[in-house]
Amino acid sequence: MPDYDALLASHLDALRAEGRYRHFLTLQRQAGAFPRALRADGRPVTVWCSNDYLGMGQHPAVREAMIAAIREDGAGAGGTRNISGTGRHHVALEAELASVHGKEAALVFNSGFTANEAALSTLAMLLGATILSDADNHASMIAGIRNGRGPKKVFRHNDVAHLAELLAELPPEAPKVVAFESVYSMDGDIAPIRRIAELARRHNALTYIDEVHAVGLYGPGGAGVAAREGVEIDVVEGTLGKAYGVGGGYVAGSATLIDAIRSFAPGFIFSTTLTPAVAAGALASVRHLRASDTERTAHQERARATRAALRAEGLPVLECPSHIVPVMVRDATLCREASEMLLEEHGVYIQPINFPTVPRGTERLRITPTPLHDDAAIASLAGALSAVWDRLGLPRQRLAA
Amino acid sequence: MPDYDALLASHLDALRAEGRYRHFLTLQRQAGAFPRALRADGRPVTVWCSNDYLGMGQHPAVREAMIAAIREDGAGAGGTRNISGTGRHHVALEAELASVHGKEAALVFNSGFTANEAALSTLAMLLGATILSDADNHASMIAGIRNGRGPKKVFRHNDVAHLAELLAELPPEAPKVVAFESVYSMDGDIAPIRRIAELARRHNALTYIDEVHAVGLYGPGGAGVAAREGVEIDVVEGTLGKAYGVGGGYVAGSATLIDAIRSFAPGFIFSTTLTPAVAAGALASVRHLRASDTERTAHQERARATRAALRAEGLPVLECPSHIVPVMVRDATLCREASEMLLEEHGVYIQPINFPTVPRGTERLRITPTPLHDDAAIASLAGALSAVWDRLGLPRQRLAA
Repeated sequence: MPDYDALLASHLDALRAEGRYRHFLTLQRQAGAFPRALRADGRPVTVWCSNDYLGMGQHPAVREAMIAAIREDGAGAGGTRNISGTGRHHVALEAELASVHGKEAALVFNSGFTANEAALSTLAMLLGATILSDADNHASMIAGIRNGRGPKKVFRHNDVAHLAELLAELPPEAPKVVAFESVYSMDGDIAPIRRIAELARRHNALTYIDEVHAVGLYGPGGAGVAAREGVEIDVVEGTLGKAYGVGGGYVAGSATLIDAIRSFAPGFIFSTTLTPAVAAGALASVRHLRASDTERTAHQERARATRAALRAEGLPVLECPSHIVPVMVRDATLCREASEMLLEEHGVYIQPINFPTVPRGTERLRITPTPLHDDAAIASLAGALSAVWDRLGLPRQRLAA
Repeated sequence: MPDYDALLASHLDALRAEGRYRHFLTLQRQAGAFPRALRADGRPVTVWCSNDYLGMGQHPAVREAMIAAIREDGAGAGGTRNISGTGRHHVALEAELASVHGKEAALVFNSGFTANEAALSTLAMLLGATILSDADNHASMIAGIRNGRGPKKVFRHNDVAHLAELLAELPPEAPKVVAFESVYSMDGDIAPIRRIAELARRHNALTYIDEVHAVGLYGPGGAGVAAREGVEIDVVEGTLGKAYGVGGGYVAGSATLIDAIRSFAPGFIFSTTLTPAVAAGALASVRHLRASDTERTAHQERARATRAALRAEGLPVLECPSHIVPVMVRDATLCREASEMLLEEHGVYIQPINFPTVPRGTERLRITPTPLHDDAAIASLAGALSAVWDRLGLPRQRLAA
């Protein structure tokens, strides 16, 4: 008999040899104290790497909506959307998301990963479309494109000229989808959305944008970067688990397009749907961030303040126009060591980001300031990073004169 | 420009022409009143098609655990498991599930669909294995096998002789995985688990069982049908959204196997994890059903009582050894009409099950009695079905003498 465990262990050994075997840190989040949390042994940490970008995961309106849904509706949805699982909160959430994005309809999924996988694979199959995909697209988009099993062309990251070349190779009337992100989460850069959309339109392509690192954070009512720039995109994909602080993912688009995904995507059809509490909490969060700019404004200000504090220490912060603050280490083992030192000696939690999440040689600490990281937390972060940089002999960045 | 909406609409029209376009019914679940619920307009219904098989979705211990997690930990997980998303409830839930199944480790996912997709595709790729798959396996297993892109062989449903033939065609030392379910949810039949496992072992194959319609419901502590029959299976996949009444899915197996899926499956790695509330609620439910047989015993008794009541009316109940009560209509349009008539005229909610969930010509009403369906509810169901059968002129089944 093949030794299945030994076969699998060899793959794990390869990860370890590359310094990219993942250890999960167990946290006890502390509602009301975010970004402070406790480790399993009770030691306190300040979390600097969460995608709960605005701290909505502890917002009273969100938590109370969830609790009310549990009291009134119960724990789970009890079925797929088709078989007894469609609740009033799911319906209201989809209507709200459609409205936020100015679309006719929206559809929620158990995760943003599933939303991308299901939507892109289903569109590729039903349309017989060629997918034109940005080289840095997220794993979930790649999964959807791959599982759609149609033709695909990958354009160099944010390279509109390259996309134009690839589009020109296709017959004008052939169905095609241009799939890209607005904010790329690891570098924090933003796509040239208007130019991509105009180019796609000229070539008769449907546009599909992943705004998971932008919804709630940018644009009118948190509708995302495309909305901020006034660019019309055919399909917007988003998440309810990052800025909205709860869980689940969604797509918004025309009524027919959403109905087609609803009706044909196995990853949607055959899954028990989101719990009523998650749907109700997400709805409360979307509504709150639609009405309030306070969190968005504070978020951007805190990101700028964090970046400035780290730059003042000469730390190699990657320049970018979004809220992400990547500090480059460029070595998998050193990146892990820096992270461990920050955690054990400074109570600062920043997960190391290694291959395959980022290319080899671009390993980094990816820092995500929130409105709840105050000046003292930022000063403490800058001091901790500086001390670790000294200990590990990591290179500083000269400040531009 | 291709008219994308028109292209997609043509696919939807095809569904409508076949009578299998899905309309979702919006329900307001009523915690404490299950299986009674309200429709969007406030009219009451009795739900007879939920997969909340034991009513754990309204169990006070489950709801209180969820509420406590929201109060203490907050709304969302805040990240992927690797990047700040691993909470104390996730870790405790995985330890509990491993223990329930007598395995070294377990891993939770946002859904059972994702658990199957991620686990099977990753095992296929890492092991270079041929997957031997039961012809009636769930869409999520098919997705995992398909996305694994390795060789596969499909054996006729529950046909051990056919599986033996297919296994004999493969080299003894070639890695292979036999993937099947315990309870098949639409017919309610149960696999010959012992014979499949023994055969797989003789041919050096890893065994993978989907017990989503069995965990919580069968076996010691709710460990499933394989456990009830004392058969050792290498990988057990289950859900937290059916008998456990909350949401999410999982796999349990050897520490190395689970670590490999944890480390390599994109659908796991790149998803924000379950909310703390869902993890805590699922944990409370698993623990409750591990200690209590009351719900399981009552469930089987109610299924028997329902089946007997429907048989007494001459309704064509499909014979099966599990808790599922399929009543055959064998026509998509009539099946939908029967469902609508039950809902509108009798306040009985049973979703019609049509192709592709079941083969054409086997359309049915799939009834799921729970411990909370009392004698009056069963009598009312039998009367309603009988009236609908008369109205639609559907065939009765002669009772065996």
